[in-house]
Amino acid sequence: MKKQEDEFIFSVAFLKHGHIYGMTKGLIEAGARLKYVYDDNAERVAKFVEQYPMATPVDSFEKILEDTDTQLIASAAITCERSDIGCRVMESGKDYFTDKAPFTTLEQIARAKRVVRGTQQKYIVYYSEYLHVESTVYAKQLIDEGAIGQVIQVLGLGPHRLNAPSRPDWFFLKEKYGGILCDIGSHQIYQFLIFADVHKAKVVNSQVGNYNHPMYPELEDFGDANLVSDQGSTMYFRVDWYTPDGLSTWGDGRTVILGTEGYIELRKYVDIAKDSRGNHVYLVNKNGEQYLNVEGKVGFPFFGQLIFDCINRTEEAMSQDQAFLAAELAIQAQIQAQVIR
Amino acid sequence: MKKQEDEFIFSVAFLKHGHIYGMTKGLIEAGARLKYVYDDNAERVAKFVEQYPMATPVDSFEKILEDTDTQLIASAAITCERSDIGCRVMESGKDYFTDKAPFTTLEQIARAKRVVRGTQQKYIVYYSEYLHVESTVYAKQLIDEGAIGQVIQVLGLGPHRLNAPSRPDWFFLKEKYGGILCDIGSHQIYQFLIFADVHKAKVVNSQVGNYNHPMYPELEDFGDANLVSDQGSTMYFRVDWYTPDGLSTWGDGRTVILGTEGYIELRKYVDIAKDSRGNHVYLVNKNGEQYLNVEGKVGFPFFGQLIFDCINRTEEAMSQDQAFLAAELAIQAQIQAQVIR
Repeated sequence: MKKQEDEFIFSVAFLKHGHIYGMTKGLIEAGARLKYVYDDNAERVAKFVEQYPMATPVDSFEKILEDTDTQLIASAAITCERSDIGCRVMESGKDYFTDKAPFTTLEQIARAKRVVRGTQQKYIVYYSEYLHVESTVYAKQLIDEGAIGQVIQVLGLGPHRLNAPSRPDWFFLKEKYGGILCDIGSHQIYQFLIFADVHKAKVVNSQVGNYNHPMYPELEDFGDANLVSDQGSTMYFRVDWYTPDGLSTWGDGRTVILGTEGYIELRKYVDIAKDSRGNHVYLVNKNGEQYLNVEGKVGFPFFGQLIFDCINRTEEAMSQDQAFLAAELAIQAQIQAQVIR
Repeated sequence: MKKQEDEFIFSVAFLKHGHIYGMTKGLIEAGARLKYVYDDNAERVAKFVEQYPMATPVDSFEKILEDTDTQLIASAAITCERSDIGCRVMESGKDYFTDKAPFTTLEQIARAKRVVRGTQQKYIVYYSEYLHVESTVYAKQLIDEGAIGQVIQVLGLGPHRLNAPSRPDWFFLKEKYGGILCDIGSHQIYQFLIFADVHKAKVVNSQVGNYNHPMYPELEDFGDANLVSDQGSTMYFRVDWYTPDGLSTWGDGRTVILGTEGYIELRKYVDIAKDSRGNHVYLVNKNGEQYLNVEGKVGFPFFGQLIFDCINRTEEAMSQDQAFLAAELAIQAQIQAQVIR
């Protein structure tokens, strides 16, 4: 099918993490057309095409790089390979949309920054715990409306279910996944950057540990970090692989945003023992204690904005600087981390 | 009224903080008899006697120190004076029960330790956010029963309502109140020591700031700290004076205890937008998501145990070492704190 003039076309390459399904879904719902799919594993491709039959499998990544219709390549490679792939994507004249974490080393970021400057292409990151969660998107609107005054602190809890048998080998190799703060910590830091409007920050403390998984010596099952922005706003986050078997979803993710005039608590994926839906927003300010469930009420403006940005070379969906900064701080936290157990 | 053989008699001296009412109430409900009350302000004494008419006002602290019936002196002096008063109490052959924070300097702690050793008297602290909150007491029972496995992390949020006009001058003078981490932070740290059974720990990061109260330059309206025990368990806590006017109580105190087999969340004083009572206990482990309100169901074993300890020279209510350690870590956090704003 030939490209229509007003069409936005993307292809998908590397299906190593299930997030690629969320990324694809978001883009298609926002009106993008999916063209090619590539992975080195035929089974993974077949499973993907079953869900997205409009995708044409190709037998090499190069075919997508060379395709002149494809404007953006969405990708969920092994974490440590995401950067190289992204640089190739940008050098082929396309924008790149990668699963998080987008990098595992500072050197990768430095190179990607150079390629962005040289090619003027985008290296956009699927920080899904911000951009694919309606309560989080809504919280940003509340903050922008002044509901809690100036943001003093963003506090994030990001527990995840390990489900070890479902994980590929590379998930347990630190060089490949980058460590817990680099991996699931990057989501948390991106939320700090957005909620507190941060463009410069430093990591003042970070820790990692493996408390209860000696069979996976390179897994970190616990990590936390403290950040301070150049404006004095702060972040604390904890990430872990300790979601109990009895929780009704994969993790009881919380975000608490403390402002000078009130605070917001997000119970993002469940309101434990009360409501198994997600997207619970609690707002306390001078007007009282307010509760709102925003499931199905906010949508995901990110994806439409991303398509718009790719077409118009704008930065509505995500600033390139903040996409890189979240990753950089996550890796800084990982490098500086004390091993406490 | 002459002391009966099986009676436990206490007196009260220094009424500078309203916590003295909670301390007195707890002791009386546990069966202690209140004998004398002293403060240098007649109005405060009159107000106290109105509530506790069995208390006989005396015109000097020395009269209480010299009273042979009084076995324990409960006291809520200006924070920086609590230590000197406590040493005089112990040197008079009585046990001391002080409001928190029990100290404002490490030197005070060192001296109090010497006096405890020399006199064999007790220096017990009203860490009310642990010992006078039923949900907190219940959480300890759950942990002891193995409901969440080994404790990995204790996370505490301790927001407080400032209500500046109701506060005395000394409340805003750092030398007198000790700083926010020393003051309301000491509660938090004590909870860590109890929940994670900690007898040795260090402060690895701490911060304080004054974000929005320039009229009180020595007030710290925000503080946080990270601790690690010698067993590898961790604590993060945030304390602040940012309870919004619209909250139905003085603070939305939370404690989240993460274990290897589950976690507990306490919504100690309110379940925002849902239930204005306190003592909400949420437990998630392999058995599912469970909710229990324990208001009126647990009581406060601390006070009866304290009386028993004073009589029998035991340590059921509070270990002297942990009482000191919580204060020492809080002051360490205060000394090490980066001023971020």
